[in-house]
Amino acid sequence: MTSSPSVPSAPVGELFRAAFRAHPAGVAIVTASGPEGAVGLTASSVASVAVDPATLAFSVTGGRSASFIASAQTIVVHLVGADQLDLARTFADPAAPRFTHSMDWELLPTGEPLLREAQWALRCEIVHRAPLGGSVLLAAKVLDIRSNPSNSAPLVYHNREFHTLFQSVSAVA
Amino acid sequence: MTSSPSVPSAPVGELFRAAFRAHPAGVAIVTASGPEGAVGLTASSVASVAVDPATLAFSVTGGRSASFIASAQTIVVHLVGADQLDLARTFADPAAPRFTHSMDWELLPTGEPLLREAQWALRCEIVHRAPLGGSVLLAAKVLDIRSNPSNSAPLVYHNREFHTLFQSVSAVA
Repeated sequence: MTSSPSVPSAPVGELFRAAFRAHPAGVAIVTASGPEGAVGLTASSVASVAVDPATLAFSVTGGRSASFIASAQTIVVHLVGADQLDLARTFADPAAPRFTHSMDWELLPTGEPLLREAQWALRCEIVHRAPLGGSVLLAAKVLDIRSNPSNSAPLVYHNREFHTLFQSVSAVA
Repeated sequence: MTSSPSVPSAPVGELFRAAFRAHPAGVAIVTASGPEGAVGLTASSVASVAVDPATLAFSVTGGRSASFIASAQTIVVHLVGADQLDLARTFADPAAPRFTHSMDWELLPTGEPLLREAQWALRCEIVHRAPLGGSVLLAAKVLDIRSNPSNSAPLVYHNREFHTLFQSVSAVA
């Protein structure tokens, strides 16, 4: 198997980045309580793994928030829609102020930061950690779930931009 | 943290399913050579984990194809677009005939089945396996990448249907 003629000399790393830039993903914000307070980051790698027990996976790379989340016992995984675009942007930018007074959040009685406007908030216990090439692949068992009734459009990350969904191609293809 | 008033008595498993039905995902087809020939399945859990070395993760659940893929040494992860909708449907349906004469595929010299029309085909070595609640979370290191120049629209799986992408919400939100 070789590279396509259009990209004959590109190394694997470069093609890999291009492939996943073009691979759409849902958007989540993962929070935890770190030793210096609440931390959080926007993740586009959250996926369901198993239903019984309810288990999800995602990975984190580099940075202070990432290392606190990777070493936390419990976390909150917020699945967000287009109405939470600002929140997704804030937690995607390490330099943006978060957990401010104007942000609608609280510390749960169990200690984790909850972003109240998220459509779904899944409080989880991390049950598996695999360090892989400077990142950590995490699996987490879901302890409880808070849903926020809303009709927000789905939010999709693709080609470094946020998008919402168009019509089903089922009908047209 | 409690369930929302709208779903007061739903157990975690049921809410978990609802949360991830609403969480959009890109679409991939993972193939391997099993003891009885080529196997494959459509996966909506493929995500990038690390760039150096290029590493991805996904999970598989139940079934013959899933168990052959989970135990394979090497696999091909095909990232597919809207032009490959039929292929995605075929490999999502365990009863659909696949690797037929009319399907555009080949066995690579290294032994894995390649679906030639996929936008991206990443040949990988599985480097990590974590059994979790009846599923297996897999991490795989990318060995080489074949890209298929095309302008296919991105394909997104959401609420049990395939969709393509609308305009960026960046501009409107």
